[in-house]
Amino acid sequence: MEISLRHVANMLNEAERIVITAHIHPDGDSLGSMLALYASLAAQGKKVWLLLDDEVPAVYRFLPGAELIRRPEGKMEADLLVVLDASDADRVTAVVEAVRAKTLNIDHHISNTKFTDYWYIDSQAAATGEIILDLLHLMKLEITADIAVNLFTAIATDCGFFRYANASSATLRHAADLIDRGARPHVIAEQLETKPLASIMTLRGVLDSLEIHAGGRIATVTVYVDAAENAAETTEGYINYPRNIEGVELAVLFKPVDDNATRVSFRSRRLDVARLALGFGGGGHARAAGCTVASGLAGAKEQILRAAERLLAESGL
Amino acid sequence: MEISLRHVANMLNEAERIVITAHIHPDGDSLGSMLALYASLAAQGKKVWLLLDDEVPAVYRFLPGAELIRRPEGKMEADLLVVLDASDADRVTAVVEAVRAKTLNIDHHISNTKFTDYWYIDSQAAATGEIILDLLHLMKLEITADIAVNLFTAIATDCGFFRYANASSATLRHAADLIDRGARPHVIAEQLETKPLASIMTLRGVLDSLEIHAGGRIATVTVYVDAAENAAETTEGYINYPRNIEGVELAVLFKPVDDNATRVSFRSRRLDVARLALGFGGGGHARAAGCTVASGLAGAKEQILRAAERLLAESGL
Repeated sequence: MEISLRHVANMLNEAERIVITAHIHPDGDSLGSMLALYASLAAQGKKVWLLLDDEVPAVYRFLPGAELIRRPEGKMEADLLVVLDASDADRVTAVVEAVRAKTLNIDHHISNTKFTDYWYIDSQAAATGEIILDLLHLMKLEITADIAVNLFTAIATDCGFFRYANASSATLRHAADLIDRGARPHVIAEQLETKPLASIMTLRGVLDSLEIHAGGRIATVTVYVDAAENAAETTEGYINYPRNIEGVELAVLFKPVDDNATRVSFRSRRLDVARLALGFGGGGHARAAGCTVASGLAGAKEQILRAAERLLAESGL
Repeated sequence: MEISLRHVANMLNEAERIVITAHIHPDGDSLGSMLALYASLAAQGKKVWLLLDDEVPAVYRFLPGAELIRRPEGKMEADLLVVLDASDADRVTAVVEAVRAKTLNIDHHISNTKFTDYWYIDSQAAATGEIILDLLHLMKLEITADIAVNLFTAIATDCGFFRYANASSATLRHAADLIDRGARPHVIAEQLETKPLASIMTLRGVLDSLEIHAGGRIATVTVYVDAAENAAETTEGYINYPRNIEGVELAVLFKPVDDNATRVSFRSRRLDVARLALGFGGGGHARAAGCTVASGLAGAKEQILRAAERLLAESGL
């Protein structure tokens, strides 16, 4: 059942035993939102648990309270299970199965599948952290410096530190409010930008693999899955290096899987790369798409480049 | 003479022929501020010129009106010469000599040397663009979408897209205001992130030069001056790659000049690198400093590493 933010506040006020969870493969928004809501409710004397069926990535362990997040163990009962930033049941299965409680989903993804008993979805929000901030204001709960750090991180990470299309004026005003309450952007940015050496070595390999084709209009890079996993971050960030080169219409990232499979990602500024991906049984959006080619790296590269040059010609680019 | 923002507004209102300039080696703040003030004053029917004794870097040519910026040619007379974002006379010499007018400096650098007839300096502002926005509000001038793009770029570039210590809540609120008036952060970010191929190739060389010393506590990179100049951007950005590696206390960037000179930059999280630089006749701040070693690259590296390891030991890091 869809409910209002006021109704969400009432449910939280009435519940005494509350479990908070979020999607697996946690990010800054899911973790920051969990920790902020936890701190606010625990400060009211409620019994609150933070459960997550995954590890907290090293880069987010600076978030105040991160050490309180536990994996679900056995069954438990509560008044309310709050599911944050998750748009479908698959990403919260273990916790939902472990906790007997009414379920409430708070999320900002437009693709939300409405899988809980109650839900509040604001797809205008750049991050679930923005909704939590609105909620804390509505509930007149104190926003401590620790809560501000968690919510600033939630918001900043989900909009690329205010560089993505979802960064609205409301997003920046929310962030400003959190600075006034003790979040320090440069301290948070420094934490988020710290990377393991393996990650820099992977980037070095990616840049070493850079190739320019079609007179500078196509740039390709290759990242090996092992290297990407060691780097403990999404490989997708690497495609921005070729994408940001002046004159490049199409950026391609190859990820060799084995002799018969190469995963391929596409980014563009004007070219319809969904069409390109579709031709290889993949899909996606006009400016970001992907596919898997049933071939090793060399073969995949040849097929993709041929198709890409044809598409560039057809598109007059 | 130090004047108030209200007094600045009055001077601008009274002047009919206004020249606007900013420091050489222009950045997003100086250019965005120039163009925003130009558009506001020109819309009032005033005669306004944009003069700059330098080229507009390619990355900023998307700024609305950038093509109107001219180099000074011969002498001219005006009612007012507005010098933006420049903290000393050396960086605006050619324009100041070419224009006979009262001079007014609007700046946010705490190091400002007060070299004009009148000045308004707000060192709390993250960017001169923030002051210009305050000024336009005070003068009740319309903030068009083009002006918003210029001022958003001015503000965002001077605070690392809200990631530096100077990004205050006021900075984010100013930016939010500009989004409401038509600035689109993701469109601006995409322009700013587009780089020439030479720049990516330089980064590739920098990462290839990465060395780890002192058990992971020191990371060094080398950038060749030619490569850096081709890349048409400051070499200083490259030092962030070693600086952001987990466990690194000291990041060092070597810039070989010739067989008898190597420029060296230092960045740290806790180590006092001003001390390190001082030992080689250089200077700077505790967390960012630099010097020139009278030696080729190999010799400079050896001397710096020896001194750095000693400082690490003395500092207990």
